[in-house]
Amino acid sequence: MNNAIDVIMNRISLRKYDERPISKEHADIILECAMRAPTAGNMMLYSIINVEDQNKKEILSKTCDDQPFIADAPLVLIFLADYQRWYDYYVNSDVHSYCKSKGIDFEGPSEANLLLALCDAIIAAQNAVIAGEALGIGSCYIGDIMENYETHKELLNLPKWAFPVGMLCMGYYPEGYTRVKRGRFDKKYIVHTDNYSDLYKENFKETFADIEKRFNAENKYGADNMGQLHYAFKTGADFSKEMARSVKEALKNWSSEKIK
Amino acid sequence: MNNAIDVIMNRISLRKYDERPISKEHADIILECAMRAPTAGNMMLYSIINVEDQNKKEILSKTCDDQPFIADAPLVLIFLADYQRWYDYYVNSDVHSYCKSKGIDFEGPSEANLLLALCDAIIAAQNAVIAGEALGIGSCYIGDIMENYETHKELLNLPKWAFPVGMLCMGYYPEGYTRVKRGRFDKKYIVHTDNYSDLYKENFKETFADIEKRFNAENKYGADNMGQLHYAFKTGADFSKEMARSVKEALKNWSSEKIK
Repeated sequence: MNNAIDVIMNRISLRKYDERPISKEHADIILECAMRAPTAGNMMLYSIINVEDQNKKEILSKTCDDQPFIADAPLVLIFLADYQRWYDYYVNSDVHSYCKSKGIDFEGPSEANLLLALCDAIIAAQNAVIAGEALGIGSCYIGDIMENYETHKELLNLPKWAFPVGMLCMGYYPEGYTRVKRGRFDKKYIVHTDNYSDLYKENFKETFADIEKRFNAENKYGADNMGQLHYAFKTGADFSKEMARSVKEALKNWSSEKIK
Repeated sequence: MNNAIDVIMNRISLRKYDERPISKEHADIILECAMRAPTAGNMMLYSIINVEDQNKKEILSKTCDDQPFIADAPLVLIFLADYQRWYDYYVNSDVHSYCKSKGIDFEGPSEANLLLALCDAIIAAQNAVIAGEALGIGSCYIGDIMENYETHKELLNLPKWAFPVGMLCMGYYPEGYTRVKRGRFDKKYIVHTDNYSDLYKENFKETFADIEKRFNAENKYGADNMGQLHYAFKTGADFSKEMARSVKEALKNWSSEKIK
């Protein structure tokens, strides 16, 4: 089953993997597909760290919101938004002198550069996901790699202008694995024509019906409805606060500073 | 030609489109594939604006760094990083009272939430790209949609917590179109094992060889080498400065503010 559209439509997040390692041939295809991804100005504003060290996988399984399955994934790829390579090239090319001769500032990357590099990194990651799926290799994104910035910086020896924005855990589907596809918001609430539409406001119950099925009045958060429960365990939860702190810390590096 | 890996490996950025409109069937498949994309916590932290209004396409072709081909694209999709839907749901669910009863703050989205939503939006966009390719529909990402935030906010009627992070121009490949695949950095400079590697520093000339082929000593920027030229026309250029300004402005909305 390798038709591109079927691959996309049948993909689910896989958190349990067959034990056999990813073959070198398949790993190479996944990485080649990642590297063919579209990239802003053909700059390839990303790097990929293939985490093979089991000890590092164990650490990541703890630092990324305690998810033990990370340590069991045969292939763990960290996608970095990366301007370091280009800035080192600029410095090596003596952009300092050029800027001085033109009377302009030589500035380090801005928040916008981080966002642009982040797009590059994630586009590459999604190519890896789809290539994997086509080969019978499932995947799960770990956004929690954006937490604990200082720890991950040290663990992965990251330079100033490389930020880990996404991690993929990958492995072959276990034999006989039953895929359960999760629901999505109705298209009318996601796809708009010409202008943003807040149609969902007319009927929150219908928009969030699929999510509200998960509500349990006997919840440990003391929440009275699904919106409160969701805020408590997701958007307002400790891991979210850590991600907020971590990203604020990392963003300090992306402030268009003058390079001296 | 619809094998997922072939589709990925043969994809190029297409900036010239066949005149015929995208069929409804194909547009639906592209959007369904986008919406099947993996999403953080199944929250679908994005919205898609399908720009059909020709006048808006014309405006976007100017506000996105003056690229006339945008106005000629049969399908223009803008991907928004979007927390607005969830925050409206939280407010509608009286998360205020819940937080008050628990003695915690009800906080608006943080910079990290923007990044997470941005990942969701771009993953969905790349699914759209690949689905399109499989149908003979080429595409080009326009990162410049991150420029002119205030103008785009008004043009698309965006609420506070929806940020346009990527735009796709799409259309059928023109008959007889010759694909020219652009080079990529060598894999050894992009894919690292266990730690970030700055191997490129050992040989900038080799790393950037493909890019340096474009250097012309008779350039209008007065640059002496490719690094200087690249900084002048790309990273240090006016459109980059505008993107830096625009994103700084938008980021003010993503500051974990207390919601009253």
